[in-house]
Amino acid sequence: MDEFERIDRLIAPLASGHPGTYGLANDGAVFACSAGNELVLTKDMMAEGVHFLPDDPPDLVARKLLRTNLSDLAAMGAAARGYLLGLALDANRDDTWIASFFSGLAQDQEIFGITLLGGDTILSERGVLTLSLTAIGEVAAGRALTRSGAQAGDIVAVSGTIGDSALGLMVLQEKLAALGPQSAAFLGDRYRLPQPRLALGAALIGLARAALDVSDGLLADAGHIARRSGLRVELDWPQVPLSAAAREAVDARPDLRGNIVAGGDDYELLFTLPEAHWPDIERLALVCDTPVTRIGRCVAGEGVALLDAGGAELATFMRGWRHGSRE
Amino acid sequence: MDEFERIDRLIAPLASGHPGTYGLANDGAVFACSAGNELVLTKDMMAEGVHFLPDDPPDLVARKLLRTNLSDLAAMGAAARGYLLGLALDANRDDTWIASFFSGLAQDQEIFGITLLGGDTILSERGVLTLSLTAIGEVAAGRALTRSGAQAGDIVAVSGTIGDSALGLMVLQEKLAALGPQSAAFLGDRYRLPQPRLALGAALIGLARAALDVSDGLLADAGHIARRSGLRVELDWPQVPLSAAAREAVDARPDLRGNIVAGGDDYELLFTLPEAHWPDIERLALVCDTPVTRIGRCVAGEGVALLDAGGAELATFMRGWRHGSRE
Repeated sequence: MDEFERIDRLIAPLASGHPGTYGLANDGAVFACSAGNELVLTKDMMAEGVHFLPDDPPDLVARKLLRTNLSDLAAMGAAARGYLLGLALDANRDDTWIASFFSGLAQDQEIFGITLLGGDTILSERGVLTLSLTAIGEVAAGRALTRSGAQAGDIVAVSGTIGDSALGLMVLQEKLAALGPQSAAFLGDRYRLPQPRLALGAALIGLARAALDVSDGLLADAGHIARRSGLRVELDWPQVPLSAAAREAVDARPDLRGNIVAGGDDYELLFTLPEAHWPDIERLALVCDTPVTRIGRCVAGEGVALLDAGGAELATFMRGWRHGSRE
Repeated sequence: MDEFERIDRLIAPLASGHPGTYGLANDGAVFACSAGNELVLTKDMMAEGVHFLPDDPPDLVARKLLRTNLSDLAAMGAAARGYLLGLALDANRDDTWIASFFSGLAQDQEIFGITLLGGDTILSERGVLTLSLTAIGEVAAGRALTRSGAQAGDIVAVSGTIGDSALGLMVLQEKLAALGPQSAAFLGDRYRLPQPRLALGAALIGLARAALDVSDGLLADAGHIARRSGLRVELDWPQVPLSAAAREAVDARPDLRGNIVAGGDDYELLFTLPEAHWPDIERLALVCDTPVTRIGRCVAGEGVALLDAGGAELATFMRGWRHGSRE
């Protein structure tokens, strides 16, 4: 397939839902923001061998690339609208790989109701496969969630379960044996296919004071909120929500608790809110079909503490998490 | 310099002009489009060894990356507002290289009045340096220039001079000897530092019927207009504007005419308009300090023809240009 066939067969159909892309036949795409809204823009890159494994299925690589960006939109409460794709193909990419990659994007476009708005494909034969995606969302003007609005007295909550992705990567790298096959498969899926919490993110507007998505690791990301909001975040280890598979892993190997709170790539929402809003959040979480769990509180001070059931600080399995403790 | 120092010292200052970037401390940036306008979005990637030479100065690599995207905005008549940057660093990038790269962006931000809105930096040690940029512009709603509006009877015009960049690359690759040192330096500069025609592009709105920027080569890009507008474009070789340096080269080696019309990377605007608007264009070109030249016409039919002074088709030095004859 040459470049033009690739555009006609695989890429242009992904842009057909938005007239302003002109079928990708122009120098750029035109995009109108709805009245009263403003845009939210995010950009993430991924390279083979760094952000995904060489034998990861190409459709899942594409969907992870898209979803990590959508998760950033969710963290700010934005609705996803579209994206631009950059693809630097290396010498190993054949038509089958490329077709599968774009079929993954097509699948997620359906799921998230978005369209491709433009992009660029280059051949870089000496390089490794490198991907770049810019996602575009919309949020009511002035209402975007940020990391800096938390206040002492806020409770801290998180969506979904934490640690699955870090354990899933270990499974795929064959560094985590002695797990049941179902648990192993579940964790691997959680690594390969994040679930951006867009509905919950939008629901948090007006209720949450600070929010972000957990990508650097629970402790590091709680640290981002602490630093940007000028306070201390205390998290209760016994409340951190674990999947059954992660529970199975950590019961067998307690040292994995460190991987769970520091591992990253969870793409769950971590947010703070006044206690009075918690019942609203619980109700909306049901509507969004996204579990939420209270896991801590904001207090005066700085930094992050992880506490055991008695309120004592758990330091032993937190060593090393500081690698990602800033943005 | 670690990742956080790099963000604090080099990257965050580039985003300080736009409050919605929150100093790059959030998951994304908020961006409001002015009332009555819509956005224009473009994305280009570049890889070392493909789109720039390993020993190109890093500040000029950065500025070329930015300017090729700004040229796409110019082609649609949009005003440049901001950009997101993706940087996949290879093992060869040291602090000096990176600092120079960002100083080039800082310089062009001043010149074009734009700010960094976000982005991502990754380390890809086995890869080659790969760059991705998404540029964001604004245009009055419904007024963006496209490739598809040309009509039979329109005249065809182009800004600046054509072929300098293709010849400049040959100079830098030492494939074009026997040029005076001034001419050689001029052509090399034209390859390394495109001049996006933003003022002219904006001025074309309401006057031009179709426009694009010459990136694939004059003939190929004229072919894009012909195909998208459903007509034939005739270009007059004697009218194609050449710089003194390009004239010197082509006088010595007439075979270089093919490189001039097929070479690409000119980043000049090619546009069509009704004859009646030509005096307006000439006046605005003076205001914009951007020379424009009539070089042909749109007629019924399809494809592109390059004609000599007598109106006969020049085929001999057009062989091979079809490589870029589609989008």
